Amino acid sequence: MPTPFILDTDTAQDDCVAMLVGLLDPEAELVGVTMVAGNVGFDLQVRNAWMTLNVADRLDSVPVFLGCRRPLVRDWVSAENVHGDGSGGLSIDFSGLEPEAEHGVDALIRMTAERPGELTIVCIGPLTNIAMAAVKDPRFVANTKALFIMGGSNNARGNITAAAEYNFYVDPEAARTVFEAGFEITVVPWAPLTLGDAVFSREQIAEIEALGTPLARYFGQVCKQTLEFDESVGIAGSTHPDSLTASVLMHPELILKSSGYNVAIESESDLTRGYAAMSWGVHGLADNARVVERIDSAGFFDYLKGLMSQQTTPPRIFSPEL
Amino acid sequence: MPTPFILDTDTAQDDCVAMLVGLLDPEAELVGVTMVAGNVGFDLQVRNAWMTLNVADRLDSVPVFLGCRRPLVRDWVSAENVHGDGSGGLSIDFSGLEPEAEHGVDALIRMTAERPGELTIVCIGPLTNIAMAAVKDPRFVANTKALFIMGGSNNARGNITAAAEYNFYVDPEAARTVFEAGFEITVVPWAPLTLGDAVFSREQIAEIEALGTPLARYFGQVCKQTLEFDESVGIAGSTHPDSLTASVLMHPELILKSSGYNVAIESESDLTRGYAAMSWGVHGLADNARVVERIDSAGFFDYLKGLMSQQTTPPRIFSPEL
Amino acid sequence: MPTPFILDTDTAQDDCVAMLVGLLDPEAELVGVTMVAGNVGFDLQVRNAWMTLNVADRLDSVPVFLGCRRPLVRDWVSAENVHGDGSGGLSIDFSGLEPEAEHGVDALIRMTAERPGELTIVCIGPLTNIAMAAVKDPRFVANTKALFIMGGSNNARGNITAAAEYNFYVDPEAARTVFEAGFEITVVPWAPLTLGDAVFSREQIAEIEALGTPLARYFGQVCKQTLEFDESVGIAGSTHPDSLTASVLMHPELILKSSGYNVAIESESDLTRGYAAMSWGVHGLADNARVVERIDSAGFFDYLKGLMSQQTTPPRIFSPEL
Amino acid sequence: MPTPFILDTDTAQDDCVAMLVGLLDPEAELVGVTMVAGNVGFDLQVRNAWMTLNVADRLDSVPVFLGCRRPLVRDWVSAENVHGDGSGGLSIDFSGLEPEAEHGVDALIRMTAERPGELTIVCIGPLTNIAMAAVKDPRFVANTKALFIMGGSNNARGNITAAAEYNFYVDPEAARTVFEAGFEITVVPWAPLTLGDAVFSREQIAEIEALGTPLARYFGQVCKQTLEFDESVGIAGSTHPDSLTASVLMHPELILKSSGYNVAIESESDLTRGYAAMSWGVHGLADNARVVERIDSAGFFDYLKGLMSQQTTPPRIFSPEL
Repeated sequence: MPTPFILDTDTAQDDCVAMLVGLLDPEAELVGVTMVAGNVGFDLQVRNAWMTLNVADRLDSVPVFLGCRRPLVRDWVSAENVHGDGSGGLSIDFSGLEPEAEHGVDALIRMTAERPGELTIVCIGPLTNIAMAAVKDPRFVANTKALFIMGGSNNARGNITAAAEYNFYVDPEAARTVFEAGFEITVVPWAPLTLGDAVFSREQIAEIEALGTPLARYFGQVCKQTLEFDESVGIAGSTHPDSLTASVLMHPELILKSSGYNVAIESESDLTRGYAAMSWGVHGLADNARVVERIDSAGFFDYLKGLMSQQTTPPRIFSPEL
Repeated sequence: MPTPFILDTDTAQDDCVAMLVGLLDPEAELVGVTMVAGNVGFDLQVRNAWMTLNVADRLDSVPVFLGCRRPLVRDWVSAENVHGDGSGGLSIDFSGLEPEAEHGVDALIRMTAERPGELTIVCIGPLTNIAMAAVKDPRFVANTKALFIMGGSNNARGNITAAAEYNFYVDPEAARTVFEAGFEITVVPWAPLTLGDAVFSREQIAEIEALGTPLARYFGQVCKQTLEFDESVGIAGSTHPDSLTASVLMHPELILKSSGYNVAIESESDLTRGYAAMSWGVHGLADNARVVERIDSAGFFDYLKGLMSQQTTPPRIFSPEL
Repeated sequence: MPTPFILDTDTAQDDCVAMLVGLLDPEAELVGVTMVAGNVGFDLQVRNAWMTLNVADRLDSVPVFLGCRRPLVRDWVSAENVHGDGSGGLSIDFSGLEPEAEHGVDALIRMTAERPGELTIVCIGPLTNIAMAAVKDPRFVANTKALFIMGGSNNARGNITAAAEYNFYVDPEAARTVFEAGFEITVVPWAPLTLGDAVFSREQIAEIEALGTPLARYFGQVCKQTLEFDESVGIAGSTHPDSLTASVLMHPELILKSSGYNVAIESESDLTRGYAAMSWGVHGLADNARVVERIDSAGFFDYLKGLMSQQTTPPRIFSPEL
Repeated sequence: MPTPFILDTDTAQDDCVAMLVGLLDPEAELVGVTMVAGNVGFDLQVRNAWMTLNVADRLDSVPVFLGCRRPLVRDWVSAENVHGDGSGGLSIDFSGLEPEAEHGVDALIRMTAERPGELTIVCIGPLTNIAMAAVKDPRFVANTKALFIMGGSNNARGNITAAAEYNFYVDPEAARTVFEAGFEITVVPWAPLTLGDAVFSREQIAEIEALGTPLARYFGQVCKQTLEFDESVGIAGSTHPDSLTASVLMHPELILKSSGYNVAIESESDLTRGYAAMSWGVHGLADNARVVERIDSAGFFDYLKGLMSQQTTPPRIFSPEL
């Protein structure tokens, strides 16, 4: 039975891999992609999404909707120092490619309304689009089956600051709105989960590249820039929070441990902006999210490797050649 | 030459009078009404808008769009203690009346895009719809000619708290977004302006009621509840911040004094939530708004009285009878 | 019957006049002066206090205690742009003048403990010393008869920012501690009270100077710098918040109107740092202070003028000569 | 060469063990104990300190100074749910025992001034006394050799909330003042350090109790209540953050890893009140503290066990009998 989902993304590097999960897993039904201001320039993100559709030979089958180009309240903060252009320098001929006319926020509202209670949204960028949809249409929360959110850290270090992970930092008000809105939420945190269980070593990346498929070569290419940044800050490999989020939706058995938490987002202080307070039972607060605590790391790698071994015929040629 | 504007409103009491300015002033072109969560229940507000259209015999000519039913981040806070049902107990037969299908936020974006640089928005409720439109569509700010905003106090007391006026208090994040977005903004503050120059005594209200037109009786009816609340808190008459905002757009000559200010909205503290810091030249901050400081109070009253003296034939009968 | 009080001060300009109230009013018993980091350099403030004692020929009779040279939490912010050296350029031979060895905070605790329930503290600088004493000794609050505090604005403009008056801005945490500690408090606010009822015109200052006494000439000299700053920001005269605070303690009949308020200090936001929320009855909060709302402005001037007409023989010669 | 230090403490459970480090290690010179409002009732804490001096037979040799009974700004928050009476129900005849007349804050200032640059302060409670001393006397920072602070978590979970460790939570303003004041600081955090390397199992506690000395029995008794609380919240043993802090001062070789961090304390938000943002190099902030990251856990246990094996003759009999 297929798992239908929407991907809400600021497409750069591992967002591309998360898209590939939706495009390549035979059980996945990627209903649409909604773009949100995040990692790199908005327009660059759209191009990264198209390149990912191209490498999977699905350019025409998945609609890309443009969402919000700025956070709810604050100025956009990029992560270009981490991601560069987000695609390791790849490009294709983009002529004739157009995003959908419908706005991403409206697409989220419409798609979930058309299939009430059926669609999960995998949220791997700032939560601006999701919050906007929840504020715009009071039925959006109930129509959405669940949110799988990449963001925050589970009582552990952030990445953009000590306190905060990037996605929640960029739009803390949106994150607060989303966590207080009543969604069914699963959280894939940056630390310790991603840093512990979703880091691929140079050897692992090489192992996938060695598959020799266009997908595997694309994977290697988009991982490269993250890898270099990660190594420069002491992480022994490339990090895969976004593809992990899509993967645990598709394969819940990858989750070895998860627990209920009360997740509250800091939006009032400069020092701790975007911090996610994940309180467990002892604090006496009502749970509003399930947080993934441990995954089958080897299984996750094998799963992605399996996907990248598929043969595809990208209709447009990559430059530099893949 | 007509002045085209959109009214973004949480229709209760003086919001109705502001609508009447748009409906009755021959120079005004009320392009549309967008509803935002504010004073009283959202659905009640819609009914109040329809009743106002009815009394002006314009039920079919001005579209009413439903906007956001909740603030960007926080829970809705009503002002029902001030406004009751917002219409002084009046009702009509609402059968057959339907709001537009288009969402208020989209209507704001579309209408301003259709007439770029032409439409002013008179904002007399929380700024949720305006902020949403600005976040959703980056062209909205440039397409909008100006905002006339009722909100905040100019270095003076608030109303819902000592620090804050209701509209900014209810959705401080939206207000912050709007004031930082680059709009051309005119502010009509609660104090000292409204409390000083836009309070009508019982005698003045009676003077208008004595005109005997349906409009005048409607005016008297909708003012009554505000009047009683205002008197209970020591204000010697009914307050007219919303109709004043529409009036100074229509008749700039009513403005006796206004100055440039830097207006910044407090969204990070509980104590001062929604406070509008209005800093003048000495503080060395760049102006981002013009704040109305003094108006021709008698001229304002005469203007409204003149409007209420018009004869209309409301197509639907009010209950209790007007 | 004499009124004994301690003056807690950041001595510059009108602080000097407040000291003179304590030194010259025959009913006043100025028990001690405690210095707090505020308007101008701490050591300059001490010199200004000594010069004031000198002009009143009381150099040996009133002890000057050095208190805290910094706020509780934040860096010191000076008001030197307003006050210059705080004494209009005057100086004396300071040789042989020494402050007391006892720390100002300890002096506050000891003096109030020696005469429990008898001493009022007139607080005309940041509230650091007072908060420190309250935190250090739990009996300090009960031992203190009352605080007369110059600070905040009563639902009106600040001075250092739109939101905040200088004294509360400099040490908002101390102000918060003091207003929550249970003292009997009278507040003399900056606006509208001081700006409305305690501004002396050039003519009034000249009228006092014309008395020709050393005190009158000193008064003229220390007012000069404030006057120039005030005029540069649109205030038509010199402002006298500090001497007003001492004066209304000595002569309660100068108070024409005062009311109970709940006063809460903003210490959590940058934008509104030091804002004093003064909430009145309608907000349903318990009163914790009496706020002076209107004074006998002419009576206040006459009172000060009367004090300055006294003849004194300053033991040390002022340079430039008075 | 002896290591002289002052212990600033809210004496309960492991604070007692930290005191014992100062009393029993032949290289330690415990110059004085200053009490601060924290874990349990202030007076109870004093009694716990006396009992600890008694079990070490040092009742007359170490002065106990009473410091601040409340935080700088906020109301005191106890940890009695964790600590009960802080001594596992033990008592002695307290007759004739009196704390020093000098206030703890003044004692801190005086002792460090008498031996400038020589004394370290081991801070194992809220930082109220230390902040007060720094605000009261500008020389205190320079006179103090170093602070060894138990508090915060190093990018890991708190204890009183998800975000915050108790000591910094209780008085976040004091903690902020201390970390911004320019002290030489070593931090012993709650997590992951204490939870990882300073938890003693039931077996380990029994091993110490089996030594059979009064000290060992006292140790067992005071650990019991923490142990039971810790086990109730899923920690497999009793936690020893305070004694660890004193121990790493006495035996730096117990520190296996420590690094420079920028430590900043959250004092502006309710959600993250008391959170310590510990930023490392990549964030580009200047280091203001050394944070202990890993210790020789077995060595720490052996060290404490060795101390508890000493024979002492407590002059006062414990009830219930030890």
